[in-house]
Amino acid sequence: MSEELKGNILVTGANRGIGLELVKQLADTAHIYACCRAPEGTGAEALRDLTTQYPGKITILQLDTSDEDSISAAVQTVNEQIGADGLNLLINNAAINKPGIPGPLSESGKKDMMEVYEINVVGPFLIAKMFLPLLQRAAEMASTVKGDKMSCRRSAIINMSSLAGSITICPENFARAQMYPYRASKAALNMVTRCQSEDFKRHNILVAAVHPGWVRTEMGGKEATLSTQDSVRGMLAMMSSLSNKDCGTLLDWEGNTIPW
Amino acid sequence: MSEELKGNILVTGANRGIGLELVKQLADTAHIYACCRAPEGTGAEALRDLTTQYPGKITILQLDTSDEDSISAAVQTVNEQIGADGLNLLINNAAINKPGIPGPLSESGKKDMMEVYEINVVGPFLIAKMFLPLLQRAAEMASTVKGDKMSCRRSAIINMSSLAGSITICPENFARAQMYPYRASKAALNMVTRCQSEDFKRHNILVAAVHPGWVRTEMGGKEATLSTQDSVRGMLAMMSSLSNKDCGTLLDWEGNTIPW
Repeated sequence: MSEELKGNILVTGANRGIGLELVKQLADTAHIYACCRAPEGTGAEALRDLTTQYPGKITILQLDTSDEDSISAAVQTVNEQIGADGLNLLINNAAINKPGIPGPLSESGKKDMMEVYEINVVGPFLIAKMFLPLLQRAAEMASTVKGDKMSCRRSAIINMSSLAGSITICPENFARAQMYPYRASKAALNMVTRCQSEDFKRHNILVAAVHPGWVRTEMGGKEATLSTQDSVRGMLAMMSSLSNKDCGTLLDWEGNTIPW
Repeated sequence: MSEELKGNILVTGANRGIGLELVKQLADTAHIYACCRAPEGTGAEALRDLTTQYPGKITILQLDTSDEDSISAAVQTVNEQIGADGLNLLINNAAINKPGIPGPLSESGKKDMMEVYEINVVGPFLIAKMFLPLLQRAAEMASTVKGDKMSCRRSAIINMSSLAGSITICPENFARAQMYPYRASKAALNMVTRCQSEDFKRHNILVAAVHPGWVRTEMGGKEATLSTQDSVRGMLAMMSSLSNKDCGTLLDWEGNTIPW
């Protein structure tokens, strides 16, 4: 059995779907910084309800993931709360898919390409860059105990990617989900993941990209094969077992490696 | 020896570096639509000189590759000139690298990420989409002679990519050229290439991504190992030998396959 994830964990896109379920399943064992664009809006009601269910375990933060000022304010807030412990795990979960499934070429234009990239790639890129000092602090805190072993309990970045971002596998699933903007963004996110893993290994920060499976969410649709509960349960078990050898890889919710 | 490339060929970013050399080496055998952002500017002097050297072989076009209206106007102009022959080869060459080499994380922000993606990915994506009818026409024109064999003489899209866009190889060269915005853009362009190759194979249009080598241009710098002449000579020989089996691959200027 995998060890439970503990410490301070930040989740983006936490108000619905996989993000909300991550908060729910993690709040028992960790302190969660649950980020979303409009914490006061109707779309964040379920997240607000969770804070009542888990008193003192969830801090909701307003965060526009592609706005450097918004991230900067969130870093400051989190920094004041976590103090010397640092941030143990950053889960870049917020993402969009436009024009959606199947998304043929004729329906995809410049606006879709730019917006999807901004949310799915530039957001995770900026958040990792700006939260880096807090992740470093957590990695250093644990260094005397754990040597140079990397883990999601110590200090890690998980970028929520997708099988649809695998360039290798693309021919197998292109016909049923063309989605140029989404696929391009997830391939780029995989590259950012790979760069971060090289860049941050000197700090002993683990970085990996994860495919959650085809999940019944607003994005995945009703036809999807997997419940958010099962996907998140699988991903958390997988994440808690990651170590140095997994740094810079793309893994599915069951822990299988996906080719780039 | 490889057959020479003929027919109608469009090259973006044609006013300098690899683009200019492509025009120079192709103008003997093909009609070139040489696109750049400011054909009247001082940066396009060498290109304007070429039109005098190769009278009637080069049409210079004003094109902002990331502006749908600008592309639409260029499509109309090219369409009027080529008539029933169609466009045989589209070379998406225009690209930028910001903040340049080595480009550590600290120097890369949102603006770089968005601008590099716009030029390096959204441009090629839009141009292929909007020139598709002209490429289809060329593919159909040749269909009675060549069956379903794909080639750069018949109808093809070449996306100028980079070894730096290989997610697999990234750990080998990350330390000396970090360039998050550029790497992410080229990985995304590789995905777009792969999508296009699946999407357009029903039209018998060949699509491939190409790494020009490390070339002594404004982008590559003076330390680079390869002259533009040698790189372009190699790429044209390689391109003229491409067929069905190469569709949807990433190849270097010598014809070697690069992993995604």
